[in-house]
Amino acid sequence: MGTDSHGPGAPPVVVALGGNTLLGEHGPWTIDQQRDAVEETARNVAAAIDAGYRVVLTHGNGPQVGNLLLQQESAPDTPQLPLDVLVAETQAQIGYLLQQALDNELSGGTDFITVVTQAVVDHADPAFEEPTKPVGPFYTESEARGKPFETRAVSSGERPYRRVVPSPEPTGIVEADEIARLVERGDLVICCGGGGVPVVREGGLRGVEAVVDKDRATRVLASELGADRLVILTDVEFAYADFGGPDRRALRDITPERLRRHLENGEFAAGSMRPKVEACIEFVEGGGELAAITSPDNLEAALEGRAGTRVSA
Amino acid sequence: MGTDSHGPGAPPVVVALGGNTLLGEHGPWTIDQQRDAVEETARNVAAAIDAGYRVVLTHGNGPQVGNLLLQQESAPDTPQLPLDVLVAETQAQIGYLLQQALDNELSGGTDFITVVTQAVVDHADPAFEEPTKPVGPFYTESEARGKPFETRAVSSGERPYRRVVPSPEPTGIVEADEIARLVERGDLVICCGGGGVPVVREGGLRGVEAVVDKDRATRVLASELGADRLVILTDVEFAYADFGGPDRRALRDITPERLRRHLENGEFAAGSMRPKVEACIEFVEGGGELAAITSPDNLEAALEGRAGTRVSA
Repeated sequence: MGTDSHGPGAPPVVVALGGNTLLGEHGPWTIDQQRDAVEETARNVAAAIDAGYRVVLTHGNGPQVGNLLLQQESAPDTPQLPLDVLVAETQAQIGYLLQQALDNELSGGTDFITVVTQAVVDHADPAFEEPTKPVGPFYTESEARGKPFETRAVSSGERPYRRVVPSPEPTGIVEADEIARLVERGDLVICCGGGGVPVVREGGLRGVEAVVDKDRATRVLASELGADRLVILTDVEFAYADFGGPDRRALRDITPERLRRHLENGEFAAGSMRPKVEACIEFVEGGGELAAITSPDNLEAALEGRAGTRVSA
Repeated sequence: MGTDSHGPGAPPVVVALGGNTLLGEHGPWTIDQQRDAVEETARNVAAAIDAGYRVVLTHGNGPQVGNLLLQQESAPDTPQLPLDVLVAETQAQIGYLLQQALDNELSGGTDFITVVTQAVVDHADPAFEEPTKPVGPFYTESEARGKPFETRAVSSGERPYRRVVPSPEPTGIVEADEIARLVERGDLVICCGGGGVPVVREGGLRGVEAVVDKDRATRVLASELGADRLVILTDVEFAYADFGGPDRRALRDITPERLRRHLENGEFAAGSMRPKVEACIEFVEGGGELAAITSPDNLEAALEGRAGTRVSA
C-alpha cells in the first residue's frame, strides 16, 4: 500500500488534527507554547508531504473557541459575536499558525492556503432539540441563570455549569469544490477548522449557534474530495477495544464490520474516541481505502498502513 | 468603458471595503447592527456581480481588531495572541459575514470563498523604526507604562495613550496565485482583510507585529491579479481637492499626474484619504485602466466610470 497515493494526480489524503495535537492537554497556553505544539505537529505533517502525499488538513478548535467566548464575555462593552462567527475566527487563528509552521518546515516548496469553511447542517436534525455539546467557560449556578443562552451542569464543584449547544450531523461542506480545485493544483489546504462553521440552507446560507464534530465534518469532506485515505490524529497511538475494562487491547488492522461491533458494544468514549471510530467506519464503508487513528508522530506510517488503528475493507 | 470588463475571461475588478462600509462610524455595535451594515454593502456588491463584473473583495478591520485586543486584555488568564494572529482572526470574522450576506443577495448563483491572506513586508522597511499606527484600546499614562508594547499619546483626555505599531509597505501577497486561480474559475474571493497579515520572509515566513494599510495591500493585489479596475469604497462619494481649505471641490475625472500634484500639495488626510489616493495613482501608473474612490451605493456606476473620483491615464 502507499505508492498509488503519492505525487500529482493521486487522490488526496485527509488528515484531522485533534485539539491536543495543537495545544497541550492542559491550558492556559502562552502563544509560544501554542507555536511549539503547532510546530511539532507541522514536522510530522511535513514529513508526509515530503513523502509525496497530497495532504488536506482539518483541525479541532475546542480550547480556542472557549477562549474567544471567555474573552468577549470579559469585555461586555464590545460586540458579543455569535458562536458561528467565533468558529470562523478560530479557523483563521489556527490555520494561519499551522500554515506558517508548515511553510518553515518545508522551506518554500509547497503553497498553503487556509479556507474559511462552512458545514451544512439540517435544521430538522434532532440535535437542535437537545443541545449536548459544552462550550466555553464554567459558571456558578447564579451566573448560569443570567446568561442569554442554554446552560447545563456538566461537572461538579463551584462552577459546574457550561453553555451547551447542539452538535448536528454535517451533510455537506460548502467550499468542497473550491478546496478540490486548490488540492488538484498542488496546494496544501487547511480547512474545516472546528468542524466547519455550521450553516443551514434557507434560500441562502445562515449561520446557526451549534458546533459540528470535527471528525464527522472531516469524514464528509474526505468523501466529497474523493480522498483514498483518512487519518485522525489524537493523543494516543491506537483506539482500544474494551477501553475501560479488563480486556483492554489496542486495535490494529480491523474491518469496518468488526469495528462497528466494538462501537455498538459501547467500548469507545462519547465525544472523544467514538466520533473518530464512526468517521473511520463511514469513510471506508463509503468507498475509502484506508482510515486510521493514531498519534502525530505515526502519521506517515499510518498513511502507509503500518501504524495506529487501521480500518480497511 | 465597461463591456470589456464583464463576464468570464474578463480581467477581475478589485473592490476595497472601508471599515465604515462594514460597520457604522460609531461603535460599539451589536452583531445585528454589524449584519445590517454588511448586508447593505453586500447589496451594492451583488449588483456589480449581477452586472457581470468579476469582483475580488478586500476590506478593512480597524474596529474589529481593536475589539479583539480589548477582549483578550480583559481576560488576562487566556492566551494573549500577537497582532498578526488577531488580524488573521478578523479576516475570517468579516469574510464569513460578508460571504453569507452576498450568498443571500445572489441566492446561490455565485460561489464565495474567504482566504486567510498574508502580505509580505520588508524587515528593513523604515516603518519598523518608527511605529505610528495606533491600534486597540485607549489607556491612561500609568496603564500605558505597564504594557508590554510601545504606546504613545495620540489624543487628549483621561486615556490619551494607545498601542502604536509599524505600518510597513506591502511588497507582495503570499496567496496571490491561489486567489488568481479561484477568480479565473468564477469564484468571488474575499481576501487581504485588514491589509493582510504582515509577514517577513526569513527562509520561511514569520508574522510581525505590524499593520499593513488595507488600500496599499489592495493595490498590490490588484496589480498581481492583473485587474483592470480598482474601486475603493469609503463613506464619501468623492475625494476632494483642498479638502480643509477655501477651494474645496470634488475631484471627478482626473489623471494620475494631476492627482499626484494634489497629493504632494498635502491636500489629503494621512491615514484616511491619502492612502486611497496613493493606491489609485500607483494602480493606474502600473498599467491599470481605471481606479475610483466612492461610496458603496456608487460602486456599479464607478466601475463604469460614471461616479466617484475616477483616475485614469
